[in-house]
Amino acid sequence: MAEWIGKDRRARRCYGFDEIALCPGEKTANPNEVDTSFTFGKKKFKVPILAAAMDGVVDVKFAVEMSRQGGIAVLNLDGIQTRYENPDEVLDRIAKASPAEATELIQKVYSLPVIDKLVAKRVLEIKKQKGTAVVSCIPAHAEKFAKQAVSAGADIFVIQSTVTTPKHIAKEYKSLDLFKFCKNTKIPVILGNCVTYETTVELMETGAAGLLIGVGPGAACTTRGVLGIGVPQVTATVDAAAARDFHFKRTGKYIPIITDGGMNRGGDICKAFASGADAVMIGSSFARAKEAPGRGYHWGMATSNVNLPRGTRIYVGQTGTLKEILFGPAKVDDGSQNLMGALKTSMGSLGALNLKEMQDVEIIIAPSIQTEGKIFQVGQRVGMGK
Amino acid sequence: MAEWIGKDRRARRCYGFDEIALCPGEKTANPNEVDTSFTFGKKKFKVPILAAAMDGVVDVKFAVEMSRQGGIAVLNLDGIQTRYENPDEVLDRIAKASPAEATELIQKVYSLPVIDKLVAKRVLEIKKQKGTAVVSCIPAHAEKFAKQAVSAGADIFVIQSTVTTPKHIAKEYKSLDLFKFCKNTKIPVILGNCVTYETTVELMETGAAGLLIGVGPGAACTTRGVLGIGVPQVTATVDAAAARDFHFKRTGKYIPIITDGGMNRGGDICKAFASGADAVMIGSSFARAKEAPGRGYHWGMATSNVNLPRGTRIYVGQTGTLKEILFGPAKVDDGSQNLMGALKTSMGSLGALNLKEMQDVEIIIAPSIQTEGKIFQVGQRVGMGK
Amino acid sequence: MAEWIGKDRRARRCYGFDEIALCPGEKTANPNEVDTSFTFGKKKFKVPILAAAMDGVVDVKFAVEMSRQGGIAVLNLDGIQTRYENPDEVLDRIAKASPAEATELIQKVYSLPVIDKLVAKRVLEIKKQKGTAVVSCIPAHAEKFAKQAVSAGADIFVIQSTVTTPKHIAKEYKSLDLFKFCKNTKIPVILGNCVTYETTVELMETGAAGLLIGVGPGAACTTRGVLGIGVPQVTATVDAAAARDFHFKRTGKYIPIITDGGMNRGGDICKAFASGADAVMIGSSFARAKEAPGRGYHWGMATSNVNLPRGTRIYVGQTGTLKEILFGPAKVDDGSQNLMGALKTSMGSLGALNLKEMQDVEIIIAPSIQTEGKIFQVGQRVGMGK
Amino acid sequence: MAEWIGKDRRARRCYGFDEIALCPGEKTANPNEVDTSFTFGKKKFKVPILAAAMDGVVDVKFAVEMSRQGGIAVLNLDGIQTRYENPDEVLDRIAKASPAEATELIQKVYSLPVIDKLVAKRVLEIKKQKGTAVVSCIPAHAEKFAKQAVSAGADIFVIQSTVTTPKHIAKEYKSLDLFKFCKNTKIPVILGNCVTYETTVELMETGAAGLLIGVGPGAACTTRGVLGIGVPQVTATVDAAAARDFHFKRTGKYIPIITDGGMNRGGDICKAFASGADAVMIGSSFARAKEAPGRGYHWGMATSNVNLPRGTRIYVGQTGTLKEILFGPAKVDDGSQNLMGALKTSMGSLGALNLKEMQDVEIIIAPSIQTEGKIFQVGQRVGMGK
Repeated sequence: MAEWIGKDRRARRCYGFDEIALCPGEKTANPNEVDTSFTFGKKKFKVPILAAAMDGVVDVKFAVEMSRQGGIAVLNLDGIQTRYENPDEVLDRIAKASPAEATELIQKVYSLPVIDKLVAKRVLEIKKQKGTAVVSCIPAHAEKFAKQAVSAGADIFVIQSTVTTPKHIAKEYKSLDLFKFCKNTKIPVILGNCVTYETTVELMETGAAGLLIGVGPGAACTTRGVLGIGVPQVTATVDAAAARDFHFKRTGKYIPIITDGGMNRGGDICKAFASGADAVMIGSSFARAKEAPGRGYHWGMATSNVNLPRGTRIYVGQTGTLKEILFGPAKVDDGSQNLMGALKTSMGSLGALNLKEMQDVEIIIAPSIQTEGKIFQVGQRVGMGK
Repeated sequence: MAEWIGKDRRARRCYGFDEIALCPGEKTANPNEVDTSFTFGKKKFKVPILAAAMDGVVDVKFAVEMSRQGGIAVLNLDGIQTRYENPDEVLDRIAKASPAEATELIQKVYSLPVIDKLVAKRVLEIKKQKGTAVVSCIPAHAEKFAKQAVSAGADIFVIQSTVTTPKHIAKEYKSLDLFKFCKNTKIPVILGNCVTYETTVELMETGAAGLLIGVGPGAACTTRGVLGIGVPQVTATVDAAAARDFHFKRTGKYIPIITDGGMNRGGDICKAFASGADAVMIGSSFARAKEAPGRGYHWGMATSNVNLPRGTRIYVGQTGTLKEILFGPAKVDDGSQNLMGALKTSMGSLGALNLKEMQDVEIIIAPSIQTEGKIFQVGQRVGMGK
Repeated sequence: MAEWIGKDRRARRCYGFDEIALCPGEKTANPNEVDTSFTFGKKKFKVPILAAAMDGVVDVKFAVEMSRQGGIAVLNLDGIQTRYENPDEVLDRIAKASPAEATELIQKVYSLPVIDKLVAKRVLEIKKQKGTAVVSCIPAHAEKFAKQAVSAGADIFVIQSTVTTPKHIAKEYKSLDLFKFCKNTKIPVILGNCVTYETTVELMETGAAGLLIGVGPGAACTTRGVLGIGVPQVTATVDAAAARDFHFKRTGKYIPIITDGGMNRGGDICKAFASGADAVMIGSSFARAKEAPGRGYHWGMATSNVNLPRGTRIYVGQTGTLKEILFGPAKVDDGSQNLMGALKTSMGSLGALNLKEMQDVEIIIAPSIQTEGKIFQVGQRVGMGK
Repeated sequence: MAEWIGKDRRARRCYGFDEIALCPGEKTANPNEVDTSFTFGKKKFKVPILAAAMDGVVDVKFAVEMSRQGGIAVLNLDGIQTRYENPDEVLDRIAKASPAEATELIQKVYSLPVIDKLVAKRVLEIKKQKGTAVVSCIPAHAEKFAKQAVSAGADIFVIQSTVTTPKHIAKEYKSLDLFKFCKNTKIPVILGNCVTYETTVELMETGAAGLLIGVGPGAACTTRGVLGIGVPQVTATVDAAAARDFHFKRTGKYIPIITDGGMNRGGDICKAFASGADAVMIGSSFARAKEAPGRGYHWGMATSNVNLPRGTRIYVGQTGTLKEILFGPAKVDDGSQNLMGALKTSMGSLGALNLKEMQDVEIIIAPSIQTEGKIFQVGQRVGMGK
């Protein structure tokens, strides 16, 4: 696995979604009969997909609708929803800004402080409409926000930064003690993002109920371009899955891993599960939902970084309802819609009756070389073993 | 062959047509004297190429002409030819639809049920004109259609789905028993599509007379993008050929394998044979024939899928007669015409006197990196060892 | 070197120019003092570059000028120069044809037979002007043309086809016996094209005085696209060089190998020598010379193939005199001009005092990934160790 | 590491920036608290980045400003600054030239000889304004210029050519003896450029105080295209770092290595340090500074080469002050601004408290395949472990 990159140094070859494919085996199954459910703590979710804590993707309304559809949406506590009493007015302004104004406007919008009481308010709004209230913030805000969110009835608390490790070195401020935090927080805590076998094991030992896997996964990812940091998602997920299985063997506790980032199409989601994921977290596909607060626009939290902005506001359009994006019918053929249909069809073709079996299908290395025959392929058939 | 893709998991490196090339050896031959014939059961076909069971490629007229030219065309029993008494009227409509209307129209056209009596009718039409009648359907329709087709005089019956395996798990319906089906069907049965050594061996044991090899082979294939599934064709063919040879050693029965999918140019066909194929199945090259029912258009069966459409109608043009596409003279230099001329010239340069010898030529790994010198190459000569 | 491409089959990984680079070592040299001379038989050529036997590249005038500059130009005996008493009139027509008419016109132009007496005439014209007369034809014409060319005073005779092997299987016609041919021909014979160690050894045993190395080398080469055949030039040259050294050890005869094809820029030529070439053959760079008969146009011999045309007429422009292309000053910075200057500068940087030393410099594998920083590179300096 | 590229020849696989990524480990750190300082001789520089000795990048004013910001700028003694009493007038002309005129004008501008007294004058100008005076020339001018520069008070002397080795073979002129030169020059001498472990060790033995690492590193680099020469920077840096460590073990002298070339974005700089660099040298990013003499234009020293021009004048624009380029705030998100912010953020995410620790972070092999999700990536967060 490790290759020499110079005189005295070796490096692991890591793999991303575009470099692998899934290989059918000796059985197939009826796609309608496969089980895609994801168990987190004592809850079972029909849709093993989390909507990412991004301001163009999740607000209260979206979180409620995602819950209705059987999945989980994570509300960002460091963004517009908690900085503004009336976020819709701000979101309207961002949507209406010209491309030239967008980044500056976003930087300005995020320069206002979080209003503490809004943390509880948003949780209450979700709970009132019977949604699953999952909220997220950066480590620096975790202790304060967690208290407010738990009091308001939140179901799951997420701490998320580009790279989260059990050991953070700082003199200017006191680092968050993840062990204490997980112990003292009365609801399940999801930590992220992380990569590597060792870090996954260590973070599981903090008492986390789930982990987000993935750091700068995209080959053309801004994190990788600007910081040089990034681990392709297939390897990151395989490593984390091995750590999860090791932790389970040793402790009897099964801590789900959620692959986060780098998935653009249905096929990528299928590959994430085949790599060992228990669930996946997705942003841009949901930004395209009619229910998404971005109004057809999408931007990352790093866009608002005043010193080192990464990414910008992009137009993704509103291509369908959340239900259509999850369950179809797909109106486009690029794999961005009917994500659950794609997952079930893939599982059927691979003979995987549930996600545990999907984690065991054969992966092959099959690089994506651009060829002429892009759009159309011989041999596609309607039927699927029936 | 298998490489580590993470902590505890390995994956095979698989190869596609664009990653290999054929290497000449110590002898050459006169292209005019090489034997390209393909033996299937008791019949011998001059052209070892099957036209794919796609509605833009094969209708009765095309099947008859393909037979005349020495090859095999497979008629799709799940499509327009058996849903409409008068398919030409429907095909005209599809050809005339605007790009915006096309997918929706195709979905509507395919929403009508198959008219049972048309199965026999199409077979009879082909036989009446002395064509080889080869018909294809999905597993769900196989038992019903096979009876009708056999009674009407069909020569070969094909069961085809994206992935076909001997074991299909379903509770909603009864899975087709391939062992029984092959035994009870009085004409040779071709099954597909499949990949991997093990599945090929198992499918050969069902009593199939031939297998279609290939699942989502193209690097940019929709199946791979949407479902994550796909095996590059060189490896798929090499594996299947090894299974065929193993089956032959054990049973004395030689079951031909037909590589299906991912071949865009003459060179790809040559590589398929070098990888071990006994014959190849092709769609898009034939969709360009003047005799093709698509009227210059081409679409896959998955285009009509209401929930998860893959691919769309594309314009391929009518670049020549079927005879010209098979035997030239080529009017274009992209390798899409004079497929048999290309195969013979390639065999001559490689010193392969027949397809068996072609299966043994040296393959090298030689990735396609795009370079400037695309169109024109120094060193090309008219002569070929003569 | 060989990797598994499927169950029971391995393939060698072969390398092309774009995948390697040359690595400087522990010494450098003054570029002005390096020796680039190429010895062929008893003659020594200052310029180790042969102009390819293509009708847009070499005519009598060009051959004479190339001789003057210290190199070798090969005149094609199967083309316009021997089919037409007055080739300039025909070349004018090709240059003036519209892009749409070009291929058809070329096919028509080449449909006329060779006029036998013109073979001798062209040789005499070159000799009269004190040029080195090197002429080329396909195997089928070799016996007849060689007699005429030798009588007229030709210096070197070249037999060239896409793939030339010592054993050619044919019943329709009598294959050329290369052993007899080399023995009976009173001037040195160059044979080509070939690849692989074994074939190179065998062709050297026929008595050839030199070999042309390379079959469909370009990654996007038409031969590779249409026929599937092609060997990347670095591996082809390394293999042939090993065969040459083996033959020399065994027989004491040093048969130069000439890498032919796939070289687009000065750097490719440098890499060919580093791979073991004694000389290189080039077409398109010379088609750009003001002295070239193509009048700014270039086309391959396969363009005229009526059944399986490959390549078309392309406009390359007239960018400078032959002298400028060989010795500069370069007017463009893409490596297509001042080929000898580039070779000498490269040799100086690599500390290679002559081509034998150049054959020993370190090659590294360094794929060409397209990056943003294309045009401009930090760190380029005028000086070169002086 | 070495792979077979043919019958009897192996080649090392070398890696460039685009092929690797950095992998976070088990700890993180506060970016504000990491130490980026670079020690050279007895001086410590806050900014471990050198501005390249290019005429569009460094003049007296720029050198002074770079010193103020904590870095080092190298003034080219072979260019406009020493050929013209009033360089600004010449730089104005180059900036105003049309693209068509640019290369010819640059060739003409550089055809005038260096005026010896200007060497001392430029050094004095920098020193008068309290800048660090670092000057550079080619080996041929080193002895003469070094005397003048040292007398004028220069701090560091740089000898730079495309490839510099301890042994240079020439009869036309006397090669520079690097051992003597380093011994006789009273200020630290930096030599470059070089690659490979062996050459780095040998050059360190000459008495150099620092080395520039990198020869034609870019995959699309002109040096590689024209001369075939080039070593990808990750491998070049790893090798040189191993040589430095070996030299240090043996002699107790730590000779810093400065990676030069091929870095386009902040991420590339981070990767250079992770590969083992003590400092990096950069051109194009600084050409974009408002203080740069190029007035928004950039050209390499090889552009002026009359015989073998490489590269041309390109427009890079003036995107910010030098301070902004080094320390932000970044106005663009492509990684070309706030280079120090990117380095610190990367070090924080990787838990590297100083550059020595940064040299030890895990490198992974993760090729850059172009994907659709270019601009925007899910999972980016503002926070960085705080």
